[in-house]
Amino acid sequence: MKLTYSPASPFARKVRIAAIELGLIDRIEFVPTAVAPAKPNDDYALINPLKKLPVLIADNGDVILDSFVIVEYLDDLAGGGKLIPASGAARWQVKSDHSLLQGMLDSMLLCRYERMVRPEGLQWQAWSDDHWNRAWNGMARFEKQADVLSRPLDIVQIALVCVLGYADFRFADCGWHKAYPNLDAFHDRMLGRPSIKISVPPPA
Amino acid sequence: MKLTYSPASPFARKVRIAAIELGLIDRIEFVPTAVAPAKPNDDYALINPLKKLPVLIADNGDVILDSFVIVEYLDDLAGGGKLIPASGAARWQVKSDHSLLQGMLDSMLLCRYERMVRPEGLQWQAWSDDHWNRAWNGMARFEKQADVLSRPLDIVQIALVCVLGYADFRFADCGWHKAYPNLDAFHDRMLGRPSIKISVPPPA
Repeated sequence: MKLTYSPASPFARKVRIAAIELGLIDRIEFVPTAVAPAKPNDDYALINPLKKLPVLIADNGDVILDSFVIVEYLDDLAGGGKLIPASGAARWQVKSDHSLLQGMLDSMLLCRYERMVRPEGLQWQAWSDDHWNRAWNGMARFEKQADVLSRPLDIVQIALVCVLGYADFRFADCGWHKAYPNLDAFHDRMLGRPSIKISVPPPA
Repeated sequence: MKLTYSPASPFARKVRIAAIELGLIDRIEFVPTAVAPAKPNDDYALINPLKKLPVLIADNGDVILDSFVIVEYLDDLAGGGKLIPASGAARWQVKSDHSLLQGMLDSMLLCRYERMVRPEGLQWQAWSDDHWNRAWNGMARFEKQADVLSRPLDIVQIALVCVLGYADFRFADCGWHKAYPNLDAFHDRMLGRPSIKISVPPPA
């Protein structure tokens, strides 16, 4: 299998961590891929019209997106129910919490594009504030969920690490470590896992 | 169950169609909800920090997001494997195709916000063009998939109708009917289903 990848993508990081934890990393070839908003990448658009990272190219040539579907696919390959509960109320809670984290990442990327990529003079502060608040209020929700922060590893914890790591990577001064002490302790503890440690984004 | 809803939301439309087709519509109370980028909605942010539509509030109070997870939940309630294949290669193809359609809708909403909601003078044409191309190139991919357009109803067809209906609703002059004759015939045929017909967005 091949995975289109950039070390700066929090979505690609999530899949990488999952693949390591599921014991599948040796079966995946990483294909370095560069995408940026407002810049064409015609070759990659043929693979994924959304021009987003990552996609998984299965051994039979099938292209699988997005990052969550890839994790579900890998979890299934590994026997099922490893990072996503296979059934019951926990399954829906985990999927829903993951959707929240995915949306928080989407909003953080929109903030980055608005503040750091969009040409100067075209920024809309209210848009940027709105999307930052979505991520920030989402963090506040997880800050209070002692169970999520302490249970055995699952895709919610992995996605939460990717959110917090992306905050450190692109919004180093945002202050989440102080504002959310439970998340800070969780993040520190998670950095003890080799899969989390090795996938920390490079210095911006 | 309750569903936060607006007739203008293509994501909420997808869930409504799925609920009708799964025979669950009578168990869902629609809760009219208004959200807009760059405008606070503090009450709704307490339910969903992402401030997005729809979420499902289950009978036990659990909040489930996003629209695809809600459809999976409803499909499961209805016995499973109705709109999303329960196993096998078809399951991954359907989930991946749905992710593509979801991303196309995300890009179309970003285009709408850029062109019609963002204050004049702050628009960035290259951003808008990039996101429109993602949706347009995605349509081109489905135009060629005769199997997707003709097989029994599933979540890919429902999401594709929501993409095309949103194009009619917000980008009426974009020309997709002429550019993509297979999609046009598919869309016409789908409008024969009561669930599709009743959920067409109101005139913009």
